[in-house]
Amino acid sequence: MSTHSYYRPEDTQYDVDADVLFGRLREHLDGESLIVHESGLRPYECDGLSAYKQLPLVVAIPENVEQLQAVMRVCNELRVPVVARGAGTSLSGGALPHPQGVLLSLAKFNRILEIDDRRRTARVQPGVRNLAVSEAAAPYGLYYAPDPSSQIACSIGGNIAENAGGVHCLKYGLTVHNVLSARVVTVEGELVEVGGTTPDSPGYDLMALMIGSEGMLGVVVEATLQLLPQPIAKEVLLASFDDVGAGGRAVASIIGEGVVPAGLEMMDGPAIQAAEDFVGAGYPTEAAAILICELDGAEDEVADLVERVRDILTRQGATEIRVAHDDAERQRFWAGRKAAFPAVGRISPDYYCMDGTIPRRELANVLTRIAELGEQYGLGVVNVFHAGDGNLHPLILFDANVPGEMDRAEELGGEILELCVRVGGTITGEHGVGSEKINQMCVQFQTLELRQFHAVKEAFDPERLLNPGKGVPTLNRCAEFGKMHVHAGELPHPELERF
Amino acid sequence: MSTHSYYRPEDTQYDVDADVLFGRLREHLDGESLIVHESGLRPYECDGLSAYKQLPLVVAIPENVEQLQAVMRVCNELRVPVVARGAGTSLSGGALPHPQGVLLSLAKFNRILEIDDRRRTARVQPGVRNLAVSEAAAPYGLYYAPDPSSQIACSIGGNIAENAGGVHCLKYGLTVHNVLSARVVTVEGELVEVGGTTPDSPGYDLMALMIGSEGMLGVVVEATLQLLPQPIAKEVLLASFDDVGAGGRAVASIIGEGVVPAGLEMMDGPAIQAAEDFVGAGYPTEAAAILICELDGAEDEVADLVERVRDILTRQGATEIRVAHDDAERQRFWAGRKAAFPAVGRISPDYYCMDGTIPRRELANVLTRIAELGEQYGLGVVNVFHAGDGNLHPLILFDANVPGEMDRAEELGGEILELCVRVGGTITGEHGVGSEKINQMCVQFQTLELRQFHAVKEAFDPERLLNPGKGVPTLNRCAEFGKMHVHAGELPHPELERF
Repeated sequence: MSTHSYYRPEDTQYDVDADVLFGRLREHLDGESLIVHESGLRPYECDGLSAYKQLPLVVAIPENVEQLQAVMRVCNELRVPVVARGAGTSLSGGALPHPQGVLLSLAKFNRILEIDDRRRTARVQPGVRNLAVSEAAAPYGLYYAPDPSSQIACSIGGNIAENAGGVHCLKYGLTVHNVLSARVVTVEGELVEVGGTTPDSPGYDLMALMIGSEGMLGVVVEATLQLLPQPIAKEVLLASFDDVGAGGRAVASIIGEGVVPAGLEMMDGPAIQAAEDFVGAGYPTEAAAILICELDGAEDEVADLVERVRDILTRQGATEIRVAHDDAERQRFWAGRKAAFPAVGRISPDYYCMDGTIPRRELANVLTRIAELGEQYGLGVVNVFHAGDGNLHPLILFDANVPGEMDRAEELGGEILELCVRVGGTITGEHGVGSEKINQMCVQFQTLELRQFHAVKEAFDPERLLNPGKGVPTLNRCAEFGKMHVHAGELPHPELERF
Repeated sequence: MSTHSYYRPEDTQYDVDADVLFGRLREHLDGESLIVHESGLRPYECDGLSAYKQLPLVVAIPENVEQLQAVMRVCNELRVPVVARGAGTSLSGGALPHPQGVLLSLAKFNRILEIDDRRRTARVQPGVRNLAVSEAAAPYGLYYAPDPSSQIACSIGGNIAENAGGVHCLKYGLTVHNVLSARVVTVEGELVEVGGTTPDSPGYDLMALMIGSEGMLGVVVEATLQLLPQPIAKEVLLASFDDVGAGGRAVASIIGEGVVPAGLEMMDGPAIQAAEDFVGAGYPTEAAAILICELDGAEDEVADLVERVRDILTRQGATEIRVAHDDAERQRFWAGRKAAFPAVGRISPDYYCMDGTIPRRELANVLTRIAELGEQYGLGVVNVFHAGDGNLHPLILFDANVPGEMDRAEELGGEILELCVRVGGTITGEHGVGSEKINQMCVQFQTLELRQFHAVKEAFDPERLLNPGKGVPTLNRCAEFGKMHVHAGELPHPELERF
């Protein structure tokens, strides 16, 4: 993809003297912990959303909480923006650097501090990889439930910032349901504790507020995660449909009848073909859609659920239903799904992965409408998604070397997100808003609600130094985007107009 | 109980002209919707924590959202405190009126607006009783999981304000896990939407922030609740122990081995005796402790769980284990537990119901220490609680007619809460902070964290009109209580010192 400029004038009104900043940070960070030369900065210029690229002024890589606090104090004193970064796998550009700011890498916060098998918790640093938590918990028969596709690489800190999900969040929840407490460094460099390991916590729920806040309220330096016992039994079904609508109705029916699968994924025809060509999972390439349904629990319970789901799938017109015979076949059923994104990468020079959520009953309608929009924009769209949650991931195919195609892809992406809002859904399922969806926030929310978000931000970061320009749009941005709701012509909080 | 004065000078610095207020409210509320005479105000002078009594200036009972918004606009303009009240069953004094304020009753917001059996949601007004939601959902095979003991009377709005729990929150979560979205009237009288029915919501998680905020951030006027399918099968076990410690260890062991009961309750000897005398549930009155364990799920799964739990109980030294044979016996097992509070009311002129949470492994230690504290204060303590969550409800027995006993009961209650904090727990499990535990918040939190709470409050209610004096203590109060943590002798946010 070619590069777009991202920041707006109001996001960049900082007056930073790079030499002063560098000198002050050098008091706390030695040698390789502080990067200032362009060649060293280059690897940090973007995250998983490579459409936007921006070099930071410096990259700081503190080794411990004290150093990190020192960096925050310097930045707070000098009014320097700070963008925290975990593994940099964000698909919404949440970790895009700020041109006048410090890119704060949590790469050295990579230790699992404690696995407590009695309380079933893991205390970890934010740079720990998602999958590493489950690996460390495995000897105790435990695991960490949220499992984004990037789990081999993405970090817990990034998962918290974006409220990451995954295939299993249908049954086991998003990051917000699986993080108990955290130690957070504020913009002033103070260390505070939020949340707790008991079911209720007194005071306002700052833990939930911190999750999904995209590094805009504080920097998590330690988190206590809830672990779950590994399920005793597991079965995976693969069902084919000769039209996408029937697949969508089967999804609604499974959930509607009270079954909560551990995972319920859907792929459309082009996705099936691409995955099959890539990994040879044995998928039915003639199908218009497949559903992959994982059921877990106790042995008898799972056996019972398999029969109930098989019944529902049959009633909803599945043309073929397979149940994996053993673990090898279960993994094969999943292999195509897990390889779907790189598989699509093989059939198109570029693709743009969207993320929106809709009510399940709208699945068939929305998929039809997305196909129409794709035709209108002259771009192919492949669908691979968490159907049980109504969490869509349309992949828009384009060629960045064809002039105008990337802009068309972004425009089509925006239209798809707005379609999600119109049918009662949201512009994100698990990737967050970041820089990618900032304009669509103007469609999702009324002005009053955006103002309330800004007021909350002010409670944590009054100088707007933490990840400025991400997550919540300024009202100016919305006005220019042409989607700002004006409430009865009045602006009830004029003091907030500076946002 | 005799009456304590509650409000501190800084909680009451409002300059309200009652006649002006009454005149302005009368423009929007007719006849019985506005109460000003003392006889009419009297029923509102306290909630379930009758130790504190306070008449409000007026009681406003709006009939619809527009009237409620008008009340808020008048109060905001005249700088009048507003205390929202549902059914008034709070045990922490969350709905104690303010002497210069409006008591805002949600009694007329009592309609269930919609049960959507496909999405499994209930859209309700805040004055709807908790149990009424499950009753309305029952024809669809659905129910609303949080079930506080007061569920026949308490309202959904109050449940949201206090993040209510109940017997089944061990498996199915607190209110925060079961409310999807809400319409909230701000202190300025504006209507905003928070949360959403899709798994993730963009922007900061204002829904989680609102839940448990004790009416201090806004007034909920409508909520969309998640409904769950009724479990297919259910079994209840009753196990006896000849010492409380063994019962505590059995609880830790059940959870530790990966069983998640639908409910796991414990009663100590005095509670067993009182309950048995009252309802004749057939409890083993010679036992030092009993556990009641409810297991639910699919038929085979539950049968399997019963055997696993029976094994664990035996290994942990249960002296007797009974499994209810039928629904009548299951209800009998629960009858004593559900009647425990009124049963204790029969053996003591007064009792004070505490609510704190501790790590499960501390159960035996903390129960022993509570007994010692009781002896030290010369007051009996009876324990009935949600053992699986580590959520204690010690009932302190006293006689308010004996001079000094009520003060001693409150002091003992405070010591018990502080003990919970010391062992790594919290001062609330499900009753909230309200007015009752305001001083113990100074023990639970550092000054920095209290400041962060106040900053969040400021983002919603800068003039501090919503339920002032509850939930989060002023730093002055903590200083006087003698428990304020001072951070390195510095107050990093001097602008917040007015709190």
